[in-house]
Amino acid sequence: MSSSELMINLNIRAYNLLQEDADKIAKLIEVQMENLTTRKCPLYEEVLDTQMYGLSREVDFAIRAGLVADQAGKMILSKLERNLAQLYEALDIKL
Amino acid sequence: MSSSELMINLNIRAYNLLQEDADKIAKLIEVQMENLTTRKCPLYEEVLDTQMYGLSREVDFAIRAGLVADQAGKMILSKLERNLAQLYEALDIKL
Repeated sequence: MSSSELMINLNIRAYNLLQEDADKIAKLIEVQMENLTTRKCPLYEEVLDTQMYGLSREVDFAIRAGLVADQAGKMILSKLERNLAQLYEALDIKL
Repeated sequence: MSSSELMINLNIRAYNLLQEDADKIAKLIEVQMENLTTRKCPLYEEVLDTQMYGLSREVDFAIRAGLVADQAGKMILSKLERNLAQLYEALDIKL
């Protein structure tokens, strides 16, 4: 494998790993959105915040390690932040 | 640069980044150790736990991304965990 092929492979792998972890958080948000009628669980926010922090550290590391472009990494986070904002908005309306 | 040289460079860079972040936590622990005589700050534990969690996510990502060997990554964390245990032990004696 040439060094440019290796770099592309590593970039794709890193991006896919971040996206996988982001998808897990998106799934958590989705489940909570579907259960808006049930009582709000305060632990849920705590878990989501912790997961978001963990992912932001992964993204930051991937950018610093030269594996993922700054913009691509930040896009993964900002997309999730929009989902989260929607969830909190929906929870506020419900309460 | 050959692909094996590139891989070595990326490995070194990733390892150094993790070590840098670990050093920041070690420094926080050290400062708290030196200030055992002052009143224990509950926020300090919170901050250290959060920082440790963030680092563990970075290490885990670096291992999964194929940048850092499993053992090397885990060694960075376990060394810090020993420091932390010493700090908590010292705090317990002090209280």
